[in-house]
Amino acid sequence: MTANSLINDVPEFGLEFRDGLLDLFLWRRDVRQFKRKQLLEGTLDRLLGLACLAPSVGLSEPWRFVVVESPERRQEIRACFENCNAIALKDQSGERASLYARLKLAGLDDAPCQFAVFADRSTTQGHGLGRRTMPATIEYSAVMAVHTLWLAARAEGIGLGWVSIMEPSRVSAILDVPSSWTLIGYFCLGYPAEEHEDPILQREGWEKRRAPTSCVIRR
Amino acid sequence: MTANSLINDVPEFGLEFRDGLLDLFLWRRDVRQFKRKQLLEGTLDRLLGLACLAPSVGLSEPWRFVVVESPERRQEIRACFENCNAIALKDQSGERASLYARLKLAGLDDAPCQFAVFADRSTTQGHGLGRRTMPATIEYSAVMAVHTLWLAARAEGIGLGWVSIMEPSRVSAILDVPSSWTLIGYFCLGYPAEEHEDPILQREGWEKRRAPTSCVIRR
Repeated sequence: MTANSLINDVPEFGLEFRDGLLDLFLWRRDVRQFKRKQLLEGTLDRLLGLACLAPSVGLSEPWRFVVVESPERRQEIRACFENCNAIALKDQSGERASLYARLKLAGLDDAPCQFAVFADRSTTQGHGLGRRTMPATIEYSAVMAVHTLWLAARAEGIGLGWVSIMEPSRVSAILDVPSSWTLIGYFCLGYPAEEHEDPILQREGWEKRRAPTSCVIRR
Repeated sequence: MTANSLINDVPEFGLEFRDGLLDLFLWRRDVRQFKRKQLLEGTLDRLLGLACLAPSVGLSEPWRFVVVESPERRQEIRACFENCNAIALKDQSGERASLYARLKLAGLDDAPCQFAVFADRSTTQGHGLGRRTMPATIEYSAVMAVHTLWLAARAEGIGLGWVSIMEPSRVSAILDVPSSWTLIGYFCLGYPAEEHEDPILQREGWEKRRAPTSCVIRR
């Protein structure tokens, strides 16, 4: 931002900032391999505070963050992932399966910081505004909180990994949260072992990005 | 970003960039009132390209953007919103209902640019990775594409408004898209009539933000 970019306190985002934002999108990454280095104290709470700046339907702020510190619970989460991953592996055959196994989908062993995110459809905050016909907007709001945290973390050199190979009901039981909450995901946070501009799944030959035009239609 | 911030081409995001990113989160807003001014040609396609840098489960890129240009279809979308909004109003009583009516929930009349976003669970891209136990990660991926576009747009002084008071099946019919696609939302894009640091729902007394600590628990 330039020094003269404030007009009536409204920030104006200059070209340099926009270039940085593009870099942030390009270098975000879903991180699987972490250094075994603790985050500075207060980092997670600060990032969770930023996450709460995300948009939410009717200002319902339905995100619920469960920071997982207990070694016993982390071990149960790890077992939950291993079970689900073993079943998922059976869905894939031959060469693809071995590739799949090599992908090392979880940073669960190394990430210093771990948390689950849930969405609470039972919240009265927001007075139901905007979600009568599309109730999943509650989950979508929590997803945007995750994405906000993801970008904010990356801007500080901290990587996030999203683990979705989990049985949601089992995760809720392990973490002892209300069964009415919807699991959005389980997340690993820490300093990435490597930095890459391309997604690991593309680098490993699993899948490749398509041209954006292929997903746009006009009516 | 500082001049010496590039090490092996990996960008390092400096304090100035992070301050700008915080401002971006703070000033994003869900925009309801737009200037009747067209976006520069190519703007939407560029923003859609940035949206495609969002994370997606298994690199499935399940987002589908439907740019709505036909005046007839826009009129039908507007009618769909009006019907749903009228029903939603009945859910709210007395003072709250009149406030609700005053909120002017849609920028449908003024926004120069409008599009719907869908998620395609039937896509084979990504080979099913990561979504066996949590199939909604497909929708969550599309939501992050929306949020990416939202932030990129705001950094250019362009506002996005998310309209969720719509009947999804009706929107799919109006826009003639596969019924297997899940509607994520209908979006208005354009130059905002006003800039605000606080959400309109807070400004109008509908709801207020809570302390982030109220949505964090530890296990």
